[in-house]
Amino acid sequence: MTATTPQLLPGGRDLDAAIAEGKRAYELDRAHVFHSWSAQAKLSPMTVVAAEGSYVWDGEGNRLLDFSSQMVNTNIGHQHPKVVAAIAEQAAKLCTIAPAHVNDARSEAARLIAERAPGDLNKVFFTNAGADAVEHAVRMARLHTGRHKVLSRYRSYHGGTDTAVNLTGDTRRWPNDNGTSGVVHFNGPFLYRSSFHAETEEQESQRALAYLEQLIAMEGPDTIAAIILESVPGTAGIMIPPPGYMAGVREICDRYGIVFIADEVMAGFGRTGKWFAIQHFDVVPDLMTFAKGVNSGYVPLGGVVINEEIAATFAERAYPGGLTYSGHPLACASAVATINAMEDEGMVTNAARIGEQVLGPGLRELAAKHRSVGEVRGLGVFWAIELVANQETREPLAPYGGSSPAMAATLAACKAGGLLPFANYNRIHAVPPCNVSDDEVAEGLRILDEALTVADGHTS
Amino acid sequence: MTATTPQLLPGGRDLDAAIAEGKRAYELDRAHVFHSWSAQAKLSPMTVVAAEGSYVWDGEGNRLLDFSSQMVNTNIGHQHPKVVAAIAEQAAKLCTIAPAHVNDARSEAARLIAERAPGDLNKVFFTNAGADAVEHAVRMARLHTGRHKVLSRYRSYHGGTDTAVNLTGDTRRWPNDNGTSGVVHFNGPFLYRSSFHAETEEQESQRALAYLEQLIAMEGPDTIAAIILESVPGTAGIMIPPPGYMAGVREICDRYGIVFIADEVMAGFGRTGKWFAIQHFDVVPDLMTFAKGVNSGYVPLGGVVINEEIAATFAERAYPGGLTYSGHPLACASAVATINAMEDEGMVTNAARIGEQVLGPGLRELAAKHRSVGEVRGLGVFWAIELVANQETREPLAPYGGSSPAMAATLAACKAGGLLPFANYNRIHAVPPCNVSDDEVAEGLRILDEALTVADGHTS
Ligand SMILES: Cc1ncc(COP(=O)(O)O)c(C=O)c1O
Ligand SMILES: Cc1ncc(COP(=O)(O)O)c(C=O)c1O
Repeated sequence: MTATTPQLLPGGRDLDAAIAEGKRAYELDRAHVFHSWSAQAKLSPMTVVAAEGSYVWDGEGNRLLDFSSQMVNTNIGHQHPKVVAAIAEQAAKLCTIAPAHVNDARSEAARLIAERAPGDLNKVFFTNAGADAVEHAVRMARLHTGRHKVLSRYRSYHGGTDTAVNLTGDTRRWPNDNGTSGVVHFNGPFLYRSSFHAETEEQESQRALAYLEQLIAMEGPDTIAAIILESVPGTAGIMIPPPGYMAGVREICDRYGIVFIADEVMAGFGRTGKWFAIQHFDVVPDLMTFAKGVNSGYVPLGGVVINEEIAATFAERAYPGGLTYSGHPLACASAVATINAMEDEGMVTNAARIGEQVLGPGLRELAAKHRSVGEVRGLGVFWAIELVANQETREPLAPYGGSSPAMAATLAACKAGGLLPFANYNRIHAVPPCNVSDDEVAEGLRILDEALTVADGHTS
Repeated sequence: MTATTPQLLPGGRDLDAAIAEGKRAYELDRAHVFHSWSAQAKLSPMTVVAAEGSYVWDGEGNRLLDFSSQMVNTNIGHQHPKVVAAIAEQAAKLCTIAPAHVNDARSEAARLIAERAPGDLNKVFFTNAGADAVEHAVRMARLHTGRHKVLSRYRSYHGGTDTAVNLTGDTRRWPNDNGTSGVVHFNGPFLYRSSFHAETEEQESQRALAYLEQLIAMEGPDTIAAIILESVPGTAGIMIPPPGYMAGVREICDRYGIVFIADEVMAGFGRTGKWFAIQHFDVVPDLMTFAKGVNSGYVPLGGVVINEEIAATFAERAYPGGLTYSGHPLACASAVATINAMEDEGMVTNAARIGEQVLGPGLRELAAKHRSVGEVRGLGVFWAIELVANQETREPLAPYGGSSPAMAATLAACKAGGLLPFANYNRIHAVPPCNVSDDEVAEGLRILDEALTVADGHTS
C-alpha cells in the first residue's frame, strides 16, 4: 500500500482516510465515552472502521474474521445490502411514531415474528433490546399469576437493568445484588461440570429436574410466578439442555401454574439452526424474549412474544408497562428486511448445516488435538470451546468470573491470526453469522488451531 | 380527491395506496401487536401513514398538526431531511458494532453531548432510551456513594423498567410497586396544587426545600445515594421549579454527599428553549439522563452524562452494567446529525422565542378566556394546560390517574379540529417541535381554542 494506491474498504471507502478517522475516534472515545462492564482507565479498546459480511476492519486497517458476531447479534453478518437498503427506505418514509399508533412496519414485523414463534405465541410486545424484554416478560408473568418469585438458573445472562441483572446467574449480578426481591437461582444441567454427580446426559437431565422440583417444593409452588431459562444458555457457556430437560421444565410449570419464559435473546433467530432454539426441544413456552438476531442489531430492537392466555389477562385490564420506542418503525422495518433476507437466502438452514457438517466436526477435531480443550459443544453457529489447564481435573484456564495470562495469550493469538473471538472467562465461543461460508469457517478453524497451540503451552 | 387525481403524501407517496396499506397495518396490529400501558381489547388505535415537519397523516389521510411531538420526542419535527440522510449514510457505512470497540459516530455523539452538558459532565454512557438511562444513573450513584436509597418526587415519570417505574411518582408505579427497595417519594414544588399551603412561588420553594431537608433527616442522610428530579417534570404536568428550588436541592445534596441526578429525558435537547432544562437554574447536577430529543427518537437512543468525580469511581473499578447496543453507531450518527441540525438551524433559540412570544402568550389568552382552564404554564415548546371542572375549587377535569367524559370530549375536539394532542389525566400539553413555525402555533392555538369551548361546557 502506497500513498498513490490507497487500499479500499467496503463501499469503496479510502483506507488511509478511515484510519485517520479512527485515530480521532479513539481520542474522543477515551475523552468522552463511558464503556459497559469496564474499569474505564484500564481499557484500550479496538477501533472498528468498517465491516462487511463476516469481516471487520480495525483501526490499523487489518481485516479480522468476525467469529463473535459482535455480541452474538449480527446473525446475517455485517452490512447486509437488503437490510441497509430497507433502513434507508424506512428512514425516508417514517423514522418514528409513538407506540400508541398503528404503523405498517411494526405490524408486519409482529406478523413475521408471531408466524415463526412456536405454538400460540401470537402477540408481540416490542422493546428496545434484551434486558427490557426480560423485565417486561417477568412483569407479565407476575401479574398473570399474581405471584412474585422468579426462578432463574446459575450460569445465565438476562441483561443489565436491575431486574434483568438480578435474574442473571453470573458474576455480573454480584455488585448489583441488592434491592430486588423475589429471584431464586438454581443449578441447571451442564454435564461437563455436573452439579448432580451425573455421568450421562440422561442422568444429568433427570437429576436436574428432580433438583428443580425439590427447590420448588421448598420455595412454595404457589409463590412462584415464572421460571426463566435461556433455551440454550449463551454467554454462560452454550450448554445444550440434555434430552428431556426442557420438556420436564414445561411439565413442572404446567403442574404448578408457573409461567415458562424462554429467553431467546441470543439463541433465537437462526443462531442454533432453527428460528428459535426452543424448537429443538419441541416445547412451547408461555412467553419468549428476543432481541439481537431479530434484526441483527442493525437498529436497537427487542421484545416479548406472548401466548394467548397471558395476552388475555391484559385484554380488559391494562398492562402496566411501556416505553417510548415500543415498536419503533425504523427498528421494525429492519426486522422485516432481516427476517425476509434470512428466509430468502436460507440462512437458518445454512446455520444448521454449518453446525452439523463444518464447524461442529472442525471444532471436534481441534478438541481431539489440543490438550487445552476440555470440551467443545454447540449447535448451528453457536459453539463453545471450554479451555482447561488440565484435561483430567477440568480446572478452567481462567477462574469463574475472571481472566488469566493463559486466556489473554490465547485471545491475543486469535487476533494476531486475524480472528475476532467472543470470550467469557475460560471459554472461546465460535459464533459466526448464520450466513457464514464454508471457506470462512475453514479460515476460522485454522486460526483457532494456532491459538489453541498457545493455550496448550499453559496446560499441565 | 378523485381516483384520477390522487392526493400525494410527503415524499410523493400516493395517498390511496397509503390508506390501503394503513388498513392492512391496522388489522395486523390488532392481531399481533401488544401495546404499552393498555387494556388490549379496549384499544382502537389511530393509524399513522406519514409524517413531515409538524404534521402527521392518519389512516383516513387526514393531516393533523402534531402538538404531541409523539411522546414529546420529535424535537426537530418529523422526517428532518438532514437526519434522514445521515441515517441512510451511516447505515451504508456501519450499522452496528459492539460497545467494547471504538466507533467514530459514537465518539462524535459523545463529544457533542458532553460539550453541551453543564459543568464537568464530560463522559457519556449510552443506553437505548430513557428508562435504562435512569437505571444506570441510579446504579452509578449507589456504587459511588455506597448507599442504597434514592429520593424521587411524586408527580414524576422516570421510565417503564422495574427500578425506573418504582422511581416514578405517578399511577403507573402502583401496579409495579413491589420487590424494589430503597425508593422514597417526596412532594416537590407545584404552587397551583401546593402541598405546603404556600401562596407565592418563593414560599413554595422554601417550604418544599424545608420539607425535603426534614425528610432526609428522618430517612438518615447517610443512607441516601441520590435525589433524582426531572429538571422540569414533564408528563406529570410541566411544573417549572420555582426560583431557588433547584439550587437549594443542589446545596442539600452537597451538604449530605448525595448524588443529584437530573432527568432530562423529556426536558432536554431544546424542549425548554435551552439545550438542557437544568441550565435555566444555573445548577450543575452530578449525573444527567437523556433520550428522546438527543436524536428526536429517529433511532432508539438514551444515556447518562457523568461528572468527573463519578467517572473516576469507575476508573480502576469496573462499572457493573452494560447493554448490547450501548453507543449504537446508527443511533449515534442520528444524534450527531440532529444536534448539528438543531445548532445550524437555531432550533433551541426558536423554541425559546416561540415560548416567550407566541405559544406562551397565546396560551395565556386562552386561559383568560376559558373557564375550563385552571392554569397554563411552561417554557419554550413545553406547555401544560391544566383543565378544571371549577376554577375556584380547582377540581381537576379528570381524576388523578384517570380520564373523564369531559376530557375525552375535549381531546376528540382537538382531533376533529386537526390537532394531535398530548394528554395526561386532566391536562393537555402543547408540545410541538422546537422548529415549529409561528403560523403552525397560531393554527394550534385556534384549534385548542375551539376544543376548550367544549371543555368549558363541562365546568361549573
Ligand atoms: C440471553 C440474553 N438475554 C438478555 C440479554 C440482554 O440483552 P441486551 O444487552 O440487548 O439488553 C442478553 C445479552 O447478551 C442475552 O444474551
Ligand atoms: C423524564 C423521563 N424519564 C424517563 C423516561 C423513560 O424513557 P423511555 O420511555 O425512553 O424509556 C421518560 C419517558 O417519557 C421521561 O419523560
